[in-house]
Amino acid sequence: MLVIGELINGMYNQAGGAIQKKDKSVIQRLVREQVEAGCDVLDLNCGPLSHNPAEDMAWLVESVQEVTDKMLCLDSTKPNAIEEGLKIIRNKAIINSTSADKEKLDVFVPLALKYKTGLIGLTLDKKGVPQDKDRRMELAAMIIADCQEKGFPLEDLYIDLVILPVNVAQAQLEDTLNALAEFKIHSSPAPKTVVGLSNVSQGMKERSLVNRTFLIMAIVNGLDAAILDPLDKELMDSLITAELILNKQIYCDSYLQAYKKK
Amino acid sequence: MLVIGELINGMYNQAGGAIQKKDKSVIQRLVREQVEAGCDVLDLNCGPLSHNPAEDMAWLVESVQEVTDKMLCLDSTKPNAIEEGLKIIRNKAIINSTSADKEKLDVFVPLALKYKTGLIGLTLDKKGVPQDKDRRMELAAMIIADCQEKGFPLEDLYIDLVILPVNVAQAQLEDTLNALAEFKIHSSPAPKTVVGLSNVSQGMKERSLVNRTFLIMAIVNGLDAAILDPLDKELMDSLITAELILNKQIYCDSYLQAYKKK
Repeated sequence: MLVIGELINGMYNQAGGAIQKKDKSVIQRLVREQVEAGCDVLDLNCGPLSHNPAEDMAWLVESVQEVTDKMLCLDSTKPNAIEEGLKIIRNKAIINSTSADKEKLDVFVPLALKYKTGLIGLTLDKKGVPQDKDRRMELAAMIIADCQEKGFPLEDLYIDLVILPVNVAQAQLEDTLNALAEFKIHSSPAPKTVVGLSNVSQGMKERSLVNRTFLIMAIVNGLDAAILDPLDKELMDSLITAELILNKQIYCDSYLQAYKKK
Repeated sequence: MLVIGELINGMYNQAGGAIQKKDKSVIQRLVREQVEAGCDVLDLNCGPLSHNPAEDMAWLVESVQEVTDKMLCLDSTKPNAIEEGLKIIRNKAIINSTSADKEKLDVFVPLALKYKTGLIGLTLDKKGVPQDKDRRMELAAMIIADCQEKGFPLEDLYIDLVILPVNVAQAQLEDTLNALAEFKIHSSPAPKTVVGLSNVSQGMKERSLVNRTFLIMAIVNGLDAAILDPLDKELMDSLITAELILNKQIYCDSYLQAYKKK
């Protein structure tokens, strides 16, 4: 599974302060820590306080590329911020994200095609986050259809089902898990699936426990990628063990350590 | 989900010594600890060193019933040991277990009918543990057919898929998880499913982590019952959280504590 590290996000204190002060050392430490913990992709988000997201994103990409060759996931609602990052990116990237709104798809899908990137598509639109599985599937189908129309390869599309927190929408989570499994029969090749994991436990007391339990459930239902905190050791250990049980990691006594050296 | 506590088993040091010395206090402490941790059913197994399993089982049932009204699961390969226990049991019990062998089914199904108990059916026979999902499903079908023929209610039947350890049969576990989900469409009413959880991590270093990860995966695939160590707090917390996510426990900040007071 693709592990996308979430910590370089201006919303969080450490990265937020570093972006404002243009302090590379903090960002580069966050890169190293997340990579050592086993993450495959680094999410870069300038955060809500950025006055110049395009400049900040370019600075983030530059700073991060000085210390890693890992794939980057450019995370912004502003197409120009994402494009400034893409202009200087060395490896394949992922755009995070488009919604199912036509005007968003008409900007982000061509951008992803131009720079040959992956693309995360959120199953929500101007009306908000859907309240049931059918509407989630409908919005996903709209994103998929638009990508097919524009010639965007579905194997580079990641559908994000937008999980709501347990304490907000407890009755919806089983549906969302079922939807993950259904995606695999949705079209061929099937789009990949991704979750922004931390949202599931927003505002709850047992955040780490809820995060890792939901992640394991999503993995057994075929989840392809997750945006998460790779420094949460118990979360990463759960992820690695779930992959071990599904025969995606080779067993050895020290399988947890072996994963991080992959 | 039905949590069956595994600790009153002569195979383990504490219970083994207590059964030999007929020391009630140890057994009754194991009852209290498991019930406080949230278990619904107590498995009682005299262990391999018992010289007189029938007498030992009756003593176990008596000792346990002095301190709890929880359901008991009588665990022995010897029908006479199970029957001695059933003769004095107050509440509904479960027989653990029959195999798919005709001569076993011809003894244990009538015994379960006579005492109106539940029955665990292991998907194995004289040839041993099956090596793939098809054979597991075939053995399960043999047990189900035999129960139907003898008029045993399928809602009281628990199919145990006999999970092998990750380090022995890593490639089989995903199949076993899929089989769990398939059971729900196997017959109507579908038989329940149960796993002897600890086996999945036999001989491994990260036992508790592997146990709880597999349990969560099994729960999302519809598992109805598990024989496990309820004193493994992280395991129980994972189980409760999985049920919370599937909307089977009501959310509150202290949902972990609330479960144990149910």
